[in-house]
Amino acid sequence: MGFYLMLLVEQVDPFSLVADELSLVTNRLRSMVVAKVPKLASAAEYFFKIGVEGKRFRPTVLLLMATALDVPIPTSAPQVEVDSLSSDLRTRQQSIAEITEMIHVASLLHDDVLDDADTRRGIGSLNFVMGPKIAVLAGDFLLSRACVALASLKNTEVVSLLATVVEHLVTGETMQMSTSSDERCSIEYYMQKTYYKTVSLISNSCKSIALLAGHTAEVSKLAFDYGKNLGLAFQLIDDVLDFTGTSATLGKGSLSDIRHATSLALSTHFCCGFHSMGIVTAPILYAMEEFPQLCTLVDRGFDDPVNVEIALDYLGKSRGIQRTRELASKHSSLGSAAIDSFPESSDEEVQRSRRALVELTHRVITRTK
Amino acid sequence: MGFYLMLLVEQVDPFSLVADELSLVTNRLRSMVVAKVPKLASAAEYFFKIGVEGKRFRPTVLLLMATALDVPIPTSAPQVEVDSLSSDLRTRQQSIAEITEMIHVASLLHDDVLDDADTRRGIGSLNFVMGPKIAVLAGDFLLSRACVALASLKNTEVVSLLATVVEHLVTGETMQMSTSSDERCSIEYYMQKTYYKTVSLISNSCKSIALLAGHTAEVSKLAFDYGKNLGLAFQLIDDVLDFTGTSATLGKGSLSDIRHATSLALSTHFCCGFHSMGIVTAPILYAMEEFPQLCTLVDRGFDDPVNVEIALDYLGKSRGIQRTRELASKHSSLGSAAIDSFPESSDEEVQRSRRALVELTHRVITRTK
Repeated sequence: MGFYLMLLVEQVDPFSLVADELSLVTNRLRSMVVAKVPKLASAAEYFFKIGVEGKRFRPTVLLLMATALDVPIPTSAPQVEVDSLSSDLRTRQQSIAEITEMIHVASLLHDDVLDDADTRRGIGSLNFVMGPKIAVLAGDFLLSRACVALASLKNTEVVSLLATVVEHLVTGETMQMSTSSDERCSIEYYMQKTYYKTVSLISNSCKSIALLAGHTAEVSKLAFDYGKNLGLAFQLIDDVLDFTGTSATLGKGSLSDIRHATSLALSTHFCCGFHSMGIVTAPILYAMEEFPQLCTLVDRGFDDPVNVEIALDYLGKSRGIQRTRELASKHSSLGSAAIDSFPESSDEEVQRSRRALVELTHRVITRTK
Repeated sequence: MGFYLMLLVEQVDPFSLVADELSLVTNRLRSMVVAKVPKLASAAEYFFKIGVEGKRFRPTVLLLMATALDVPIPTSAPQVEVDSLSSDLRTRQQSIAEITEMIHVASLLHDDVLDDADTRRGIGSLNFVMGPKIAVLAGDFLLSRACVALASLKNTEVVSLLATVVEHLVTGETMQMSTSSDERCSIEYYMQKTYYKTVSLISNSCKSIALLAGHTAEVSKLAFDYGKNLGLAFQLIDDVLDFTGTSATLGKGSLSDIRHATSLALSTHFCCGFHSMGIVTAPILYAMEEFPQLCTLVDRGFDDPVNVEIALDYLGKSRGIQRTRELASKHSSLGSAAIDSFPESSDEEVQRSRRALVELTHRVITRTK
């Protein structure tokens, strides 16, 4: 359920718009995770290696956001040395992108230890390759590097925001371990968990980009809203795709479609232990509102494949997939609306970045993998 | 090898000097680690429970340091509202004590996961009682709470210092896992590791106390030096006590004394896996300078009790224990000298706190457990 986007070839491509700056950020990231101790260095660098660094979805959004909010800010102080200040600002905003990625990778490292995961991003998880000790330490190391980098931005509101994100990541991960039936069968609990675990990071880092630029609380809130709604839409579609796979009939699939596409997903995601609860995402929780007996099934767990089959039967008969897609669309629109409410600007670059951000809200809900 | 001090009943007791303020700090600590998620809350609170909270050695030092540096600071700005400002300052210095303790406990939680430790502070380790997943998460949670509290101090130099400490804790822990023979047989490498893993936290938090009060870089460095030397002396004596136990003939013990006292320590500390390297501390490393063949023994590891016996033979014949105590005394004196170099003050409370800090440097090297 990684937070990445497929690269569709289109006229206005959000990713190519920031490609150059992104490689700068990526290179700096690699140099930031160099540790004095060789073993720690190779561990921390593990996920920043060329080829396995992921789609860099978050840094892309953040760099686009920086340009999208590059508008004159009403201020009482005289503007001196605008050029040097704004280039300094850009560097600090790039730092937010780097810090965000470090926090993200740190949480992946610890999650893999918690889940005893074998693979990550198509290669062996660090936990699997170098052992859980090094994975815990490398995660701690990245968090401390992120914290040091944060402190150097000398903006305590931003430090506080991103420190809170780390707390949210932990809270979300712990909520996921819940053993209460009421909680596991509640869509509200699930959405709250999703916010903490997947969405808080992107929404608060978007807000940080605005705060560093000196925007008002109102504008910073719009940046937050964009990140939050984009993130929620992304995760909800992720949940759908876990059931429907790459089928072109997403959300319209017959039961057999769903069951067929799911068999692979199940074998990789839902097979044993904690992971078996991975099936209880938005589609199942919506299905539960039509078929309350699903809750009893969830309580029994999904170690037994028969229970999985029964759950999928209910899902196929229900509007679970459809309602999940509808909710994702709603969040996609809200994200797009946040951008439309940004302070007016006739600057072409600003407008192009805003269009790219809106484009991302569309891609997130139309993607098929 | 916990960092705590025995309470000796004496006329000027450093601990009773700050006892009231310490319970205030302890209570606030308990309220700070309350999490939204019950499981996480009980995990994070685990080590802040009454009775198992340790000797609160670090908070004691930090509160004494705050008073010891409560002297007028030369400033060009007019002093307004001194009372409200200084009470605010004291609260922020208390926060440093709380943050330091949170970072310390977080590192204990992760260390116990790394070491598969069963017990901690006489009770089951969190790792053992609630499982490694919760221990990793609770550590992360405490770190994020510490980071949020740090950010609220709105002093980016202090944020940076304490974030670097987290990095040092990780670096120290990783150095301890080293598999290079050269490194494992080097006293310099060992002292560097000890600084990162045990001493960086107390020295940098002492420095933070001075920085918050607005002291010069010079005075802040003295505060750092005090913490560093106290911490090093403490750890070196810890190393000695691991071999000599509670014997009254510390450092003068015959071989049989050492071997006898060590048998218990060995069974708890040095028996298997990573822990078996716990025997290679300063005394053994000094002994190695007289008996280089000890290095070969270290390379072989101490899973075999016979190797432990041979190592203890060499240690008994060597000046290892004595030289370790001498080094501890040197650091104890340096710590005391740092206090003597503090800006002059005739304030009685200030002087009493300074005497208490000096008293701690003595207790650290004369303690027998």
